[in-house]
Amino acid sequence: MRGRLLHGRSTKAKTVILGGLKDHLKTIRRSRRIVFIGCGTSYNAALAARPLLEELSGIPISMEIASDLLDRQGLIYREDTAVFVSQSGETADTLHALEYALENGALCVGITNTVGSAIARNTHCGVHINAGAEIGVASTKAYTSQIVVMAMFALAISGDSILSQARREAIIDCLFELPCKPHLPTFPAHSSFCCKVRGVLELDQEMKDLANLLIAEQSLLVFGRGYNYATALEGALKVKEVALMHSEGILAGEMKHGPLALVDENLPIVVIATRDACFRKQQSVIQQLHARNGRLIVMCSKGDAASVRTGGSCKVIEVPQAEDCLQPVINIVPLQVI
Amino acid sequence: MRGRLLHGRSTKAKTVILGGLKDHLKTIRRSRRIVFIGCGTSYNAALAARPLLEELSGIPISMEIASDLLDRQGLIYREDTAVFVSQSGETADTLHALEYALENGALCVGITNTVGSAIARNTHCGVHINAGAEIGVASTKAYTSQIVVMAMFALAISGDSILSQARREAIIDCLFELPCKPHLPTFPAHSSFCCKVRGVLELDQEMKDLANLLIAEQSLLVFGRGYNYATALEGALKVKEVALMHSEGILAGEMKHGPLALVDENLPIVVIATRDACFRKQQSVIQQLHARNGRLIVMCSKGDAASVRTGGSCKVIEVPQAEDCLQPVINIVPLQVI
Repeated sequence: MRGRLLHGRSTKAKTVILGGLKDHLKTIRRSRRIVFIGCGTSYNAALAARPLLEELSGIPISMEIASDLLDRQGLIYREDTAVFVSQSGETADTLHALEYALENGALCVGITNTVGSAIARNTHCGVHINAGAEIGVASTKAYTSQIVVMAMFALAISGDSILSQARREAIIDCLFELPCKPHLPTFPAHSSFCCKVRGVLELDQEMKDLANLLIAEQSLLVFGRGYNYATALEGALKVKEVALMHSEGILAGEMKHGPLALVDENLPIVVIATRDACFRKQQSVIQQLHARNGRLIVMCSKGDAASVRTGGSCKVIEVPQAEDCLQPVINIVPLQVI
Repeated sequence: MRGRLLHGRSTKAKTVILGGLKDHLKTIRRSRRIVFIGCGTSYNAALAARPLLEELSGIPISMEIASDLLDRQGLIYREDTAVFVSQSGETADTLHALEYALENGALCVGITNTVGSAIARNTHCGVHINAGAEIGVASTKAYTSQIVVMAMFALAISGDSILSQARREAIIDCLFELPCKPHLPTFPAHSSFCCKVRGVLELDQEMKDLANLLIAEQSLLVFGRGYNYATALEGALKVKEVALMHSEGILAGEMKHGPLALVDENLPIVVIATRDACFRKQQSVIQQLHARNGRLIVMCSKGDAASVRTGGSCKVIEVPQAEDCLQPVINIVPLQVI
């Protein structure tokens, strides 16, 4: 984030500056659609950032898994902005999708972590993630830092809107509160005492105990919705990759259209129910799962344990609360630790 | 399909007539996007029909799970055509999404099976599915008949295009070959001897044997791509609902971005690899799975058993071949029988 967030001391307003984009912002704002294209974790990170970008830009967002776009020979137009998300900047499918989008005349934006990578070189403009070792633990770094950069992308696109100014400033404040970097001179003093990512890393032991309980299991479901649908997908993907356990991320709103049949007292289910506009709906999902004697592990905001326990017993993981659109950056950390 | 497909006897060309849409086709053709909205099986059916609609209409298609659209308060505009897919026409989430789209001024199209249902009444125009008992087995009926209707929707939208005329006629021919209804006078004589759905129903015993092998398993993965990505999702959903086994549909192109870690000699994996533009890629997926000693069940087109067995042994299910875009209608049937 270094040098990209201005906290309103030298200038009047809190703003985001992304040098690699500024000559293209006008074109992006006028595009017919923004199409996010990625694979695996990068796709999930884009999915987490999508609601904010929709909210702030007012431009329809399409989500494409790179290989699926290529399989379908899906539609890409000159009026589209195609955003390619890849940590390495060399992911084969994403790179092929970039070639395809260039042929079709779209404005191509790269979001990568590797200066000089193929995607960084071949896109019209872009943002480097500059992920050092400072945010999150090892392998969530890609996911969390990509979300942070895409949130900044959304802030940059909507930088001219007066209507969303208060919302933008709240998000910028929250971005400052995420990491713990008192050694960096650009960070204001107050960030050192409200480090949210460190707050959630303190759950380490608690999560290890939980992991021990789950170690003998063969399956795990992760339910999320809204901003945290992506957290559910990414959490399940990480459990697959690291714990080699069959784990599936499911949109909580789809529960009653099929997955509910699986729920019994044996199958462990993680429900993400931190505070945001969907919290009420998640409470109702939890109650329905309790009614089926589901074996629940609920992730909620600090202090909310009582309001998610109504109707039955469950394990509770309390995480620090952040601005809704940045909550996935916090919520993924305990799932990673499992 | 009664009375909707004209087979070129009274008129010169083979065409599709959808009475409930004809006054709105011009508006639909000019819309900025077509947004498909549904839940569960209806969403999967729309996903299966999407590539054809993209190909024939040239209009960008967005896919929305109804509850996710509502959770995000996703963007819907006056220039959009929103297509609501629901078998009952009363699905709560889809109905709320319809109210939301109407408020936002989109043209709303209903695809339902129930005349007089809330969705049929409140949309601007639509198509009834008229699913009798003739297509497929009991609970795949919704999925298969919805795909057939949405294929006809795609044909109707592109009815004016000369470039796609040959493709449209091939699809119309294939639509005639799907069901087995020699008693219906509107069907030409040749349809009675090439009944594809009956062909796949003859696999019944074979599938029961397979189901017995899987009965003790706790997990199942289903890999598909292109037209059959939806088949993988829907097949997995049906196994969840009916066999109460944890089953997940996965886009085959995403395999190497995570799910590959799960593959071993115990976990059963269904790979859908019928002949279409993605067949080569699926062959390479099968080889990678063989290299990991995966326990494979491959669904392929009749006569293709040898070309999917290269590199290792696996169970093979051969199904009749159809026009690529209608293949999901065939492929879902054996998965349903499991």
